[in-house]
Amino acid sequence: MHGLMMERQLLISGIVDHAALYHGDTEIVSVNTGGGEHRTNYAELRRRALLLGSALQNRGMSRSDRIGTLAWNNYRHLELYYGVSGAGLVCHTVNPRLFAEQLVYIINHGEDRMLFFDRTFLPLVAGIRDALQTVASFVMMEARDEAVRDEYPWVEFYEDLIAEGDSGWSWPDDVDERDASSLCYTSGTTGNPKGVLYSHRSTLLHAMMSATPDVMNFSARDCFLPVVPMFHVNAWGSPYAAPLVGAKMVMPGPGLDGASLTRLFNQEKVTISAGVPTIWAGLLQHLETSGEKLPYLERTIVGGSACPPAMIERFRDEYDVEVLHAWGMTELSPLGSVNNLKNKHFELSEAGQKKLRESQGRPPFGIELGVFDDDDNQLPSDGETQGNLYCRGPWVLSSYFSNEGGDPLRKGWFPTGDVATLDGDGFMTIRDRSKDIIKSGGEWISTVDLENLAVAHPDVAEAAVIAAKHEKWDERPLLIVVPKQGRTIDEQALLGFYKHKVAKWWIPDAVMIVEEIPKGATGKILKTALREKFSDALLTAN
Amino acid sequence: MHGLMMERQLLISGIVDHAALYHGDTEIVSVNTGGGEHRTNYAELRRRALLLGSALQNRGMSRSDRIGTLAWNNYRHLELYYGVSGAGLVCHTVNPRLFAEQLVYIINHGEDRMLFFDRTFLPLVAGIRDALQTVASFVMMEARDEAVRDEYPWVEFYEDLIAEGDSGWSWPDDVDERDASSLCYTSGTTGNPKGVLYSHRSTLLHAMMSATPDVMNFSARDCFLPVVPMFHVNAWGSPYAAPLVGAKMVMPGPGLDGASLTRLFNQEKVTISAGVPTIWAGLLQHLETSGEKLPYLERTIVGGSACPPAMIERFRDEYDVEVLHAWGMTELSPLGSVNNLKNKHFELSEAGQKKLRESQGRPPFGIELGVFDDDDNQLPSDGETQGNLYCRGPWVLSSYFSNEGGDPLRKGWFPTGDVATLDGDGFMTIRDRSKDIIKSGGEWISTVDLENLAVAHPDVAEAAVIAAKHEKWDERPLLIVVPKQGRTIDEQALLGFYKHKVAKWWIPDAVMIVEEIPKGATGKILKTALREKFSDALLTAN
Repeated sequence: MHGLMMERQLLISGIVDHAALYHGDTEIVSVNTGGGEHRTNYAELRRRALLLGSALQNRGMSRSDRIGTLAWNNYRHLELYYGVSGAGLVCHTVNPRLFAEQLVYIINHGEDRMLFFDRTFLPLVAGIRDALQTVASFVMMEARDEAVRDEYPWVEFYEDLIAEGDSGWSWPDDVDERDASSLCYTSGTTGNPKGVLYSHRSTLLHAMMSATPDVMNFSARDCFLPVVPMFHVNAWGSPYAAPLVGAKMVMPGPGLDGASLTRLFNQEKVTISAGVPTIWAGLLQHLETSGEKLPYLERTIVGGSACPPAMIERFRDEYDVEVLHAWGMTELSPLGSVNNLKNKHFELSEAGQKKLRESQGRPPFGIELGVFDDDDNQLPSDGETQGNLYCRGPWVLSSYFSNEGGDPLRKGWFPTGDVATLDGDGFMTIRDRSKDIIKSGGEWISTVDLENLAVAHPDVAEAAVIAAKHEKWDERPLLIVVPKQGRTIDEQALLGFYKHKVAKWWIPDAVMIVEEIPKGATGKILKTALREKFSDALLTAN
Repeated sequence: MHGLMMERQLLISGIVDHAALYHGDTEIVSVNTGGGEHRTNYAELRRRALLLGSALQNRGMSRSDRIGTLAWNNYRHLELYYGVSGAGLVCHTVNPRLFAEQLVYIINHGEDRMLFFDRTFLPLVAGIRDALQTVASFVMMEARDEAVRDEYPWVEFYEDLIAEGDSGWSWPDDVDERDASSLCYTSGTTGNPKGVLYSHRSTLLHAMMSATPDVMNFSARDCFLPVVPMFHVNAWGSPYAAPLVGAKMVMPGPGLDGASLTRLFNQEKVTISAGVPTIWAGLLQHLETSGEKLPYLERTIVGGSACPPAMIERFRDEYDVEVLHAWGMTELSPLGSVNNLKNKHFELSEAGQKKLRESQGRPPFGIELGVFDDDDNQLPSDGETQGNLYCRGPWVLSSYFSNEGGDPLRKGWFPTGDVATLDGDGFMTIRDRSKDIIKSGGEWISTVDLENLAVAHPDVAEAAVIAAKHEKWDERPLLIVVPKQGRTIDEQALLGFYKHKVAKWWIPDAVMIVEEIPKGATGKILKTALREKFSDALLTAN
């Protein structure tokens, strides 16, 4: 027997409808790519998102077609989030920091039919345009600009498209909550990037739980500034969670340096922000130099890579800002856990509380975590037993776009690739963040790709790449090589070998030449041993 | 094209699974019906709820069978919430304050197969047992008690049932999120009580949004004490929302007087509570007399009837407790709106903010409100235009149990029966709370029933019942009558006429004898005119 409650689909269009209806005049402040600020609100966001959706339909886009974006955090990007998904299409956010070949691969693989981009990325788009097989329209996210048009006659303009929209249009009423809403590629450790295809339902459930006090803690009393880019796992879902509760939004555009952020935080009275540790390190450094304070900022969500305990303390002690340490993955929409203490922890000592705050935190309702051995047997959650971290829940991936890489699940769980411990309270600590990956400024660098290239060099016998600690980027790749017998290796020449083969920022910072690389019983390189020996190499070297 | 995220059902069993897994040792403190406290936790709640579910299945209960409860807020009632719904059955909470005939009607109409009750209600159950047509088992929520058994050989005991459960049992894996989970009857203005049949999905979405900062604001740092009874719209859904976030729970049992509540608040360090204004009036009175303070209580949710502004101020100014003024209905699970200011309102004056706090607040995501004229045309949300308040959303009723009363919807909206205004920010103010209903201590009294009985009296020509203001109960019924020509009416005799026909607390407090009752153009009694004249009658009379 079914319950007798209204059947209503959980749709992304429902978020902007709610925001426009009950928070219509709540501001969205947006820093333009070319400087200056634009001020709009949720009623306008919805009005223009509808015009965009209508225009896309007029252009012949049909259900579930992918629409690509290469853009900063700004109001037009937000309109694309709602206009594209609301119209029953799929918003495919592409990371403009990737190497051109990766961009081409991802856009072709996603079969994007249109590509929207900020002015900043015009040269990039011009460079890859010929290689994009499915994109029929290239839309610069600006008003019409004849100078651009003269030089790039294939460029269309966002505001022209908005003007094409029908003001009487409404969201299609046959979108199912399980329909695809958005697409984001993850650059995994091995092989090609793989697409994660979110649904309206997964996005809504994630947004609802994100707003709760133990997760992002969003209310209509907040002013939220997402530093985390909208091309990076949908800015951790925050562009959905903030309008869902009617929080004011401040979109910082491309300027994410300490001075720009401090100015925005204080001018717009931002209460909550979210970003990777590298950004916060830059902010703290700026504050120290300038002597400025953050009188309005209450909390900041830190994720993307582990947050140094000292950073948590400085925010707390010097600036009265609470740090919410979070962990997630593209495959998890991304929220997997957030570090928030429980009622009983108030009875712990300061030191005990501090220690707890350093872990990756505990999962909200909707996420189940488990640690498993290599045969997929679940291990105890005793705070000590390390195991492969698996995850399941309604906003966790079940398979990649186009079934790339086959079935990723193990016994119904998604294996995260991390090694972790779990305690009885759900607090999860990543022990070996992943066997291979390097997190440089919040972005991932695959060690396997770098190793494969190194061993392709004629002088290299064996190679291993590890994450070495770095003052600015948290981690940078360090290449460790064994020369072939009778050969000598020139460090600069070897690093030059990477040029044009990987993105510039993927190139290792240094090379360590060794006689032997330690291996385990099965012949696998023991990266833990290498890390113990070399992870401080870049710190002492600089 | 569907998204590629895991398909997971939103089930009530999922809440207790999450709570047991990640908040296993978080306490549930429960005041026993006979006095004394019982301490348990979420791991135990789940263990015993599973045993209960297993025992119910062993007893032959099958999918969607209704299981009745007549109980206070205590840990066994919480086990029933999870064990019954988790097993795919329907938890039917019955209000023990109703008159016996109503209880019989409701339990027969719901076709309850078993009835669970607290010791307090044994005499009540004994009195109605013979009239209950579908109940095969009567289970007292206690350990086996031979003295009770001797006197009432038909009584079974809760702990015996738990002992029958199979410890290896697990939740059925074929429950759909749209399946019925629980049932609650509403005593409408006219006709018989009607059942509202919630689904797992509606309950979960309601619980998730309830936890957000602008609604109940629940986190694992909270200790929550629900004063609102679990037989009253599932205690406003809080027994789902609190375990969902791992908040500690304190179940107060039957003692809801100011002294008992103060003791519990302070002993258990309760941070948040929820209840009707009558309860809070009693608490404030006790605090004033005793001089006690509430050092831990941070917020309280007030609903069930309009909260007097003076109460909001006293909590805020004298006890540093924030009052969240909420509005809802059984048909809305019940949350329809909560009064929480927005970011922009911080710029208002103290007086401006205070004024806003007096409204019924604004709807959370998931609820849409509208005001309509009598022809179902939507009226403007301008803060001034009064209209019939309609509502829609995924936790709003679509039809009553057994389709009682036919299709209640108008153009897809549920008409609340209230007259209200809405402003551009979604703030809703009930102007004429409903044409008829009296809210006495948070419980509704139907004026139509009372009027129908009055005119059945041989001396009464015409009768109208209105809500008269009352110091303790907020409102009490006042009966206004026109005597038949040549007859005189004796007030006490007339009130005595209600005895055994309605619940004792439904009997009007006083009778006003008038020569004429004002009527509108269509011959309907003008209750607004009567209220203007007589609504203070009980205040001045006392």
